Amino acid sequence: MKNEVYQTIRTERNGGVATIFINNPPVNVLGTKLMKELKTVLQEYAGDDTVKVIVFESDNSEFFIAHVDINILDDQEAVEELTKDVYEGLNIFQTIGEIIRRQPQVTIVKLKGIARAGGAEFVAAADMSFASLETGKIGQTEALMGIIPGGGATQYLSEKMPRNRVLEVILGAELFDAKDAERYGWINRSVPDSEIDLFVDKLAQQIASLPDGVVATVKKVLPPANLQQGYQKENDGWLELVSKPKAAEIFSSIMKKGAQTPDVEKEIETLLRSL
Amino acid sequence: MKNEVYQTIRTERNGGVATIFINNPPVNVLGTKLMKELKTVLQEYAGDDTVKVIVFESDNSEFFIAHVDINILDDQEAVEELTKDVYEGLNIFQTIGEIIRRQPQVTIVKLKGIARAGGAEFVAAADMSFASLETGKIGQTEALMGIIPGGGATQYLSEKMPRNRVLEVILGAELFDAKDAERYGWINRSVPDSEIDLFVDKLAQQIASLPDGVVATVKKVLPPANLQQGYQKENDGWLELVSKPKAAEIFSSIMKKGAQTPDVEKEIETLLRSL
Amino acid sequence: MKNEVYQTIRTERNGGVATIFINNPPVNVLGTKLMKELKTVLQEYAGDDTVKVIVFESDNSEFFIAHVDINILDDQEAVEELTKDVYEGLNIFQTIGEIIRRQPQVTIVKLKGIARAGGAEFVAAADMSFASLETGKIGQTEALMGIIPGGGATQYLSEKMPRNRVLEVILGAELFDAKDAERYGWINRSVPDSEIDLFVDKLAQQIASLPDGVVATVKKVLPPANLQQGYQKENDGWLELVSKPKAAEIFSSIMKKGAQTPDVEKEIETLLRSL
Repeated sequence: MKNEVYQTIRTERNGGVATIFINNPPVNVLGTKLMKELKTVLQEYAGDDTVKVIVFESDNSEFFIAHVDINILDDQEAVEELTKDVYEGLNIFQTIGEIIRRQPQVTIVKLKGIARAGGAEFVAAADMSFASLETGKIGQTEALMGIIPGGGATQYLSEKMPRNRVLEVILGAELFDAKDAERYGWINRSVPDSEIDLFVDKLAQQIASLPDGVVATVKKVLPPANLQQGYQKENDGWLELVSKPKAAEIFSSIMKKGAQTPDVEKEIETLLRSL
Repeated sequence: MKNEVYQTIRTERNGGVATIFINNPPVNVLGTKLMKELKTVLQEYAGDDTVKVIVFESDNSEFFIAHVDINILDDQEAVEELTKDVYEGLNIFQTIGEIIRRQPQVTIVKLKGIARAGGAEFVAAADMSFASLETGKIGQTEALMGIIPGGGATQYLSEKMPRNRVLEVILGAELFDAKDAERYGWINRSVPDSEIDLFVDKLAQQIASLPDGVVATVKKVLPPANLQQGYQKENDGWLELVSKPKAAEIFSSIMKKGAQTPDVEKEIETLLRSL
Repeated sequence: MKNEVYQTIRTERNGGVATIFINNPPVNVLGTKLMKELKTVLQEYAGDDTVKVIVFESDNSEFFIAHVDINILDDQEAVEELTKDVYEGLNIFQTIGEIIRRQPQVTIVKLKGIARAGGAEFVAAADMSFASLETGKIGQTEALMGIIPGGGATQYLSEKMPRNRVLEVILGAELFDAKDAERYGWINRSVPDSEIDLFVDKLAQQIASLPDGVVATVKKVLPPANLQQGYQKENDGWLELVSKPKAAEIFSSIMKKGAQTPDVEKEIETLLRSL
């Protein structure tokens, strides 16, 4: 069983639909191990034309992906390993986004629980996203950490909503509930929690059942936009800020105060605004 | 009376507003005769500067336009006749869309009943569209037929909503009600059925009453986007799929099962998913 | 006190947030004096890096900005003074919009009362806008005056909503309430009147409190779009219409009937449609 090789994800197949469950306790931070396993499984699916649709969901009911592991840049070797031989010029976070965006299958996020920062970028990189009306939350929290989003959000958001709302999302740095996220076009739509499993599963199965060639042709006619220049600008801005002592100080401070544990993560904006 | 020459439409004039009623029983399929009459009347209006606004509506309360006539490609002569001397490089469906988009008048769709596939593209090609909250429905059904939209929808939708929603519309292939269509920006807005006639008629008359030059100048400053490249890509994708035996098999199968008759058309997604 | 030098605005500072109150009785028309004072204060803030956020609001509970002063073009000298040394090729209205758009600070409109025509363009030029659910109203009224918007709206609206809705806004020329404006993406969102002060003040203070460099970097990565060509086309169209006798006749007629006084301004669409 392939599943046995993964430690931070598990997968299920149901006909043409593969589901990747994110399972990286305690709060599903997006660290190098999770990234590596996601990259591996997505590359495997990319070569398997019996997989038509990939659904991402979380094994943790409170967190989809908390955010990128705050300590991620400590392991430069793993970071370099992840970005090499993929998309030239992209940082590791943009690389993950681009892998999702270029996946030949249709990718769908079923968002239950919280997705912040790099987790929110993961959601926005997928072809479609549906959020639980009651539990789905999404936020670009980076500004509170002294940085800007560095994994594509400046570009992904700009494709989904006008600039006035992008600025509100990034500079306001609030956690949006599913209804507001839908209203801003950040996700496809919110679905009552009692219906979202059925909704996403039905949609995924229906897409997987489409006659041969339809998905590939739609993706060819409507490819993801080329964001090369935008990624570059975003990375320049992100790199400048993340290199400042202030960012390191904030990271260190919130780690000491319990970041990356469930209770603190639920209200991390409050902690960050109190520093 | 000009009206007498048309068999699938009828027209009314009220001041500067011309209304074209689509009337092609039993379900208003968009066939070559209807296309030809639409092209003729629109070209006539294009040369008549007393017409300021053109409203499209249906004489059939259940169907605005069911979809393109499934047998349309059988009559190659009519197809060629329709596309020649119009917009080079566009297929017949894109040609109809482009005629609507380039109409000098303001074009408004009053959507009561169902508009699917080529009918949905017709709606999206118009300058504005308002749908009955209760009866207006719109869907890109093509994926279920083994093809992709080939009459501009890949482009028109991309102008109106972000790619995640375009993919949901095209690959999900569901019939949207007016409220959801409004939420996705597919139509201008939904209006209660009891108010939509008054709403559209008032708006049309008000636009027709604007001081000279305003409509023309607004259309000059805000022209429809040049979609030449997008149309080409869309047609390439559409043509590849429509040429496959699978598409022909689906078309033949649904015709045998009652497609293009009212009862079957009301729920044609169900029939198509059952094949 | 700097405030003493201004006659049509007053300013307040609260930490990193500067608020500019528009105060040009009786209905806050955007005339040359108000424009000049806005330009002066914005240029002053542009050079003051202790100001992080600029909030615009009105001292008049019924009008944010009624519209541009109808007599504005009578004072050519003041108009020329305002546009020289700013952005080459832009008319005076576009110049004001561009000053707002290029402001290094985050600009936020708190919209209570009515913003029409040039006032609506002011709202749309800001980085963000929040409107009172009960009193906030916005409209591009120009079409009823025989002209098109000439201060950027054709471009600003096109960034915020699809063309079908832009055409409805400009050609329908109706005053939108805050809920509809939100639905169309014209403003960031509507907020109940009882909460909007707290909402905007909190957001402004939070943005002003972000770690150093975040605002500047976000604005650098997500700059306002270059609208040079669009401005040119818009101005060409506007100039052609505003030079016609019809526009002058409408301006003169509504001034005689009480335009720029509160009672008439509340329902000026009705007056304009009755001419």
